[in-house]
Amino acid sequence: MEASSPLIEKASAMVDEGRLWRRHMELAQIGATEKGGVNRQALSAEDARARRLLVDWARDIGLDAFNDRIGNVFVRRSGTDGAAAPVLTGSHLDSQPTGGKFDGAYGVLAGVEALEAMNGAGVETRRAICVVAWTNEEGSRFQPGCMGSAVFSGDANIDQILHVPDWDGTSVGQALERTLAATPDLPVTEPGFPVSAYIEAHIEQGPLLEASGRTIGIVTGVQGARRYNVEVVGEEAHAGTAPLRARKDALRAAVAMVAALGEEMADDTDTVRFTVGRFDVSPGSPNTVPGRVRFTIDFRHPDASTIAELCGRIEPTCRAHAQGCEVAVKPISDTPPTDFDPAIIDTVRRHAARLNLGHMDMFSSAGHDAIFLAGVCPAGMIFVPCERGISHNEAENATPGDLAAGARVLTACLTELANS
Amino acid sequence: MEASSPLIEKASAMVDEGRLWRRHMELAQIGATEKGGVNRQALSAEDARARRLLVDWARDIGLDAFNDRIGNVFVRRSGTDGAAAPVLTGSHLDSQPTGGKFDGAYGVLAGVEALEAMNGAGVETRRAICVVAWTNEEGSRFQPGCMGSAVFSGDANIDQILHVPDWDGTSVGQALERTLAATPDLPVTEPGFPVSAYIEAHIEQGPLLEASGRTIGIVTGVQGARRYNVEVVGEEAHAGTAPLRARKDALRAAVAMVAALGEEMADDTDTVRFTVGRFDVSPGSPNTVPGRVRFTIDFRHPDASTIAELCGRIEPTCRAHAQGCEVAVKPISDTPPTDFDPAIIDTVRRHAARLNLGHMDMFSSAGHDAIFLAGVCPAGMIFVPCERGISHNEAENATPGDLAAGARVLTACLTELANS
Repeated sequence: MEASSPLIEKASAMVDEGRLWRRHMELAQIGATEKGGVNRQALSAEDARARRLLVDWARDIGLDAFNDRIGNVFVRRSGTDGAAAPVLTGSHLDSQPTGGKFDGAYGVLAGVEALEAMNGAGVETRRAICVVAWTNEEGSRFQPGCMGSAVFSGDANIDQILHVPDWDGTSVGQALERTLAATPDLPVTEPGFPVSAYIEAHIEQGPLLEASGRTIGIVTGVQGARRYNVEVVGEEAHAGTAPLRARKDALRAAVAMVAALGEEMADDTDTVRFTVGRFDVSPGSPNTVPGRVRFTIDFRHPDASTIAELCGRIEPTCRAHAQGCEVAVKPISDTPPTDFDPAIIDTVRRHAARLNLGHMDMFSSAGHDAIFLAGVCPAGMIFVPCERGISHNEAENATPGDLAAGARVLTACLTELANS
Repeated sequence: MEASSPLIEKASAMVDEGRLWRRHMELAQIGATEKGGVNRQALSAEDARARRLLVDWARDIGLDAFNDRIGNVFVRRSGTDGAAAPVLTGSHLDSQPTGGKFDGAYGVLAGVEALEAMNGAGVETRRAICVVAWTNEEGSRFQPGCMGSAVFSGDANIDQILHVPDWDGTSVGQALERTLAATPDLPVTEPGFPVSAYIEAHIEQGPLLEASGRTIGIVTGVQGARRYNVEVVGEEAHAGTAPLRARKDALRAAVAMVAALGEEMADDTDTVRFTVGRFDVSPGSPNTVPGRVRFTIDFRHPDASTIAELCGRIEPTCRAHAQGCEVAVKPISDTPPTDFDPAIIDTVRRHAARLNLGHMDMFSSAGHDAIFLAGVCPAGMIFVPCERGISHNEAENATPGDLAAGARVLTACLTELANS
């Protein structure tokens, strides 16, 4: 069974730009920051409120929702064939500590918009369609990110994940219990079920679409990413009395490591992404020589062999600059480069063209839940532009028109895939 | 009127090693850390409890106490001449966040021990003697340190000091109100009164006495110290998408600044003290390029012209490594090298010799409240050894015998000075 082209067009046409935008603005009030961004970290009170709002919206348009045991929230629109595996779309509701209004939120809200548009168009599909909000995509509070999708896909073990602590020692399990309490009316299932296809809409988080004047990014894959935690242990001492040569200054050592790693990672093509985002100094007193530093490394590259080579230098470089301190380099996550499914890529490209939207194939530099879904079903992504490519920043911005354009492509793709 | 030598000897002999040690151990329970140190930061609840204990001890030995408006606590033993300016001794009860049991506490407890020994010996003095616990010597929670003594000496303006915020935004004034509430029975005076002499006992916080096998350090002066806060402002960005060359990475810039400053400050004689003790990264997410870093610089050297020359390089060096970020270098404090009063130095030396204690002249590498008192009266210090010279560290340690020896010298000096 294939959806007729008029049916798909009718569903796409029912996407309501104003409604989609208003939902973004309402959601952005949860965890709103003074600078216009969002602080809605994974499994926080704000995350719980955002989940509650999603479930309430689903109910308003006649759809049911359920949680799974890792906290992924699913909104379900039934199909005519109860035995057929559903099509899945979505993204995440959690944000960076100083995040924007669109990263993640867009993929969830575009999914809800697609289901409401299909309702409005009176479209029936063979397969059910689920919109999902994955738990902890960002990985800033709890490391690594994409916890919900990785558990769903079987790439992560839920029992291990539940014990992961945040920076203050609260575990995923403890925070999850409080989060699920916001939606006590929802059934809670075991994570994972058969999925026929996955498609995720997202802001690009880079400058390419805006620079090329195009509206739709046909995402062909995602670069690989590794994350490490480095701990440097020296000895606290008095800043006035301890001679520099006698010190084991954990900060001076860590600074030397980061500076040296920066040189190791330099490349002519500016393809390597190397970031030290967190750098905690203990005891953090101006007149005490630091006894301990813990810092994070986020490394990304599209090429697997380059990842292996450059990441292989991390530990030796840290050791070479330890300056008498102890150093421990702990790998946190390792996600190889991902290629999306050619049929999904083609579906996105066809519908973008049919809707007369400027589009281009592109590789994602950011990690997404779609990486983990790509391991269990045909998967792909739709990108829309964001202003100056700025993301993970309270200034993150996108236009109502671009968001709606992406939602139209998504609606078309979902309608077709749910009738395959 | 001069105290007779037998009277001085009698007072010194009444110093009780066990009592002095027990008071150290009891005080160290307030803010005790798991590793055997103390976290009793300035104007915290723990600091308030320590002040209460001091006042209770004073009452136990028949002495009255009073606060001044910046929170300095004074315990007073009257003299026979009510019109004569008192002799002052003491140090501080606040600690580093991971501090030791003796830094500061010793100077206060040795002062109390001296007064109790004089009581026990039936010694009368012409001048009153006050033991003081100065507010916020450490300067780790509120910058700069030595706030209480600097206000007392007129070097700092109390109204400005009351507005100084800690790292969480609480002001000295707010914290002080809560602290003074622990001693509501004490009168509160305006800071500052005439003082005839000041003498402060302290652990050395360096390795020289232990290495030379001597018990008493005759402190001839203190090296100069400057403190700066540096703020680096870049732009938050996504760790996966933002090309390295397009970033304004506040952490990479700050790391380059600290590394370059380390090279600028290198000296063959290992005399320079250069410390970055605090380094706060915002937003502190592993996959967001840091938008802001604030770090502290603590610089010390015995020579005024070297201080001027090397500190003159701080701002240009930071600017040279700003890597597109904005940088602001803010001077926080500037304390020139201090020479103590020759007569006080001689008094300490004479009594150490008379008590047959191994002693040596030495310069203090650490800053102390005595620096500010040296501006308003003849001032000096007595050092006793600490294990391996370790201080500003929970492992800080000293022996009961050395502490008592220093208290004996202090008692003798105070008895003589209070009869001058």
